[in-house]
Amino acid sequence: MVPGFLAGAVASEMRYRNRTDLALIAAEPGTEVVAAGVFTRNRFAAAPVELCKERLKAQGIRAILANAGIANACTGEEGLKRAGEMTRIAAEALGIARGAVLVASTGVIGMQVAVEPVRRVMPDLVASLRPDGWEDAARAIMTTDTVPKMTVVSGVEIGGKRVTVGGIAKGSGMIAPNMATLLAFVCTDAAIEWEVLENWVRRCADESFNRITVDGDTSTNDTLLVLANGRAGNTLISDIESPGSIAFGEALKAVLLDLARRLVVDGEGATKLIEIDVTGAPDEGSAKAVAFTVANSPLVKTAFFGEDANWGRIVCAAGRAGVDFDPARVSLYFDNVCVFRNGGPLGGSDVEEAAAAVFRQKEISVRLDLGAGQCGYTAYTCDFSYDYVKINGSYRS
Amino acid sequence: MVPGFLAGAVASEMRYRNRTDLALIAAEPGTEVVAAGVFTRNRFAAAPVELCKERLKAQGIRAILANAGIANACTGEEGLKRAGEMTRIAAEALGIARGAVLVASTGVIGMQVAVEPVRRVMPDLVASLRPDGWEDAARAIMTTDTVPKMTVVSGVEIGGKRVTVGGIAKGSGMIAPNMATLLAFVCTDAAIEWEVLENWVRRCADESFNRITVDGDTSTNDTLLVLANGRAGNTLISDIESPGSIAFGEALKAVLLDLARRLVVDGEGATKLIEIDVTGAPDEGSAKAVAFTVANSPLVKTAFFGEDANWGRIVCAAGRAGVDFDPARVSLYFDNVCVFRNGGPLGGSDVEEAAAAVFRQKEISVRLDLGAGQCGYTAYTCDFSYDYVKINGSYRS
Repeated sequence: MVPGFLAGAVASEMRYRNRTDLALIAAEPGTEVVAAGVFTRNRFAAAPVELCKERLKAQGIRAILANAGIANACTGEEGLKRAGEMTRIAAEALGIARGAVLVASTGVIGMQVAVEPVRRVMPDLVASLRPDGWEDAARAIMTTDTVPKMTVVSGVEIGGKRVTVGGIAKGSGMIAPNMATLLAFVCTDAAIEWEVLENWVRRCADESFNRITVDGDTSTNDTLLVLANGRAGNTLISDIESPGSIAFGEALKAVLLDLARRLVVDGEGATKLIEIDVTGAPDEGSAKAVAFTVANSPLVKTAFFGEDANWGRIVCAAGRAGVDFDPARVSLYFDNVCVFRNGGPLGGSDVEEAAAAVFRQKEISVRLDLGAGQCGYTAYTCDFSYDYVKINGSYRS
Repeated sequence: MVPGFLAGAVASEMRYRNRTDLALIAAEPGTEVVAAGVFTRNRFAAAPVELCKERLKAQGIRAILANAGIANACTGEEGLKRAGEMTRIAAEALGIARGAVLVASTGVIGMQVAVEPVRRVMPDLVASLRPDGWEDAARAIMTTDTVPKMTVVSGVEIGGKRVTVGGIAKGSGMIAPNMATLLAFVCTDAAIEWEVLENWVRRCADESFNRITVDGDTSTNDTLLVLANGRAGNTLISDIESPGSIAFGEALKAVLLDLARRLVVDGEGATKLIEIDVTGAPDEGSAKAVAFTVANSPLVKTAFFGEDANWGRIVCAAGRAGVDFDPARVSLYFDNVCVFRNGGPLGGSDVEEAAAAVFRQKEISVRLDLGAGQCGYTAYTCDFSYDYVKINGSYRS
């Protein structure tokens, strides 16, 4: 998928049976890799998160090892030791420094990862590495996900060379059940300075993963890692404002946003993807507060599940976001159907029928104009279904 | 229920069929009444809320008229006019000033209340007024509630006299569906100065209704009204710090907290009442942020529904509340069972069995000690069930 990177997966049976649960992504020998990441801000950050943060400071990264089933979160010193041990086993098998391996885990919180299964299957895991092993890797990191998620943008022209950006992700609930959750690994063959890459990763995460919500929860393990190997041979991107840098940033954002949308679509029990587009806000922070208050409202989300074009729940959620606006200037659209204008609903059976038709779609756009300024923010969410309750009410049993 | 106050109800058929939907509470002639209220902070406050706020400034209140089925929210100038018209009809029938009547509405947002049905049944409504008409009134204001809610505390000794505080409430979702929602009307025969009453109403609302959440949504119509008629003949409570005032405040808090808990227990689809008790916080604001982040987490609430003693979801919700604490000092108890200490779970099948037994109860206490200070906060919530999705996914149809 991305020149110079290999991926593979095996079954360690650390917790799951009859499925792969261990993925490896590795740079081919002889390439220089720069790496950047963004991580959960949860106070209970998992051991692999702590370890990645440390190793990214030193750079020299060559590989990512990830397991599904056990999150290695709330596991104390022993958890940190085991995370390090996992990377040591991979590093030895790959013939690289231990500090060159990053690690990520997803699964049940409070349980220690088992190191022995990792040691036992590592030769097979390394043997499984191949240029087109990405789907296997995407499948191995799934937990309550129902489909593997991968995406790639290729042919991005940077200084006359063609660059590729591609990656995999897993998600579901934004901390699923007891599941510690969002993992995304993206690789590119662009030649880019570390500081510029880090800057783009932060910016693009803000415009993709940080805009989605399944249930408002964030996990102990949320991890986005981006590796760049320079194999495309483009002139090194060292100025973030340069045309090549902008082109790279757009490609990275496209990949992250596509992965983020796939996560929402595959949200636990989700049947619809909903874009919440707040405009006319006095500032971006206000727009964001309104967008997420609407996107996380259980009443709004159950209305989408029920295909009930219920403008009342949306404006009421907006009204409690703590943002100052004049209700009499607020308008609301479902796709292009205006259902609420200047503080009151637009009546008529034609409006209701058009709105009902929009709500039967799989993807719905909600635009809420506050009439209070020039700023906006877009968030993505899914509906709340019986299956959400079912998946999360009975996960551990 | 409360000496000097009468209550009654009738069916107006404004929207519902075959049930009462219009309630009236009135002070007997010849008593002086002081009144205070607290209201939704939603930007889309309904017309009756605006009207009550105005009339409370002038005082001289004698009655409360309330309807269920139509919320008179997002209805513009016409809505305000109709709310005023409702009070005029009641005032004429009671032979009092129009400004002496407060009004509250609950039901569908964006629909105008129908005035003619109110006019038609007003003679019957006034005729229905009686000292023991409170349960009828409580039943008439129900929407998705499954039981009427009323409570009374009597025999409170204030300066040698016995005082009564009692009232009714309706709730369900904390804005139910498209339902604009929490109404509570409380009366007392205490003699109390208006400023002192207002102060107690605000304080006690903060320690009761403002501590409960069903789904985190707040409504366009949330209204708490408290009327005091002085009929008990106690020395006028004019100093908030006096023993009589403190006794009154405790009684009012007991009534509001009991009504609030009844609202949670009857939350849409709720099967359990959960008390979230955060201790060891650096300040009350931090404790409150953690308590409500946990209380509103869909993952936490579905775990309670599934009777899954899932400490992971609770500590993770706490970890994303934006409060600074050291995970290694956090402890978590389900009733008296410690399941998490110093940042890690307590293993052992005895702990798991004891925790599982707590989760099978109808009322569960969760205590989360952050180990970061001396402050605390208690919130009340319910679980998230299939029925929540069912009720809210198909309300309008």
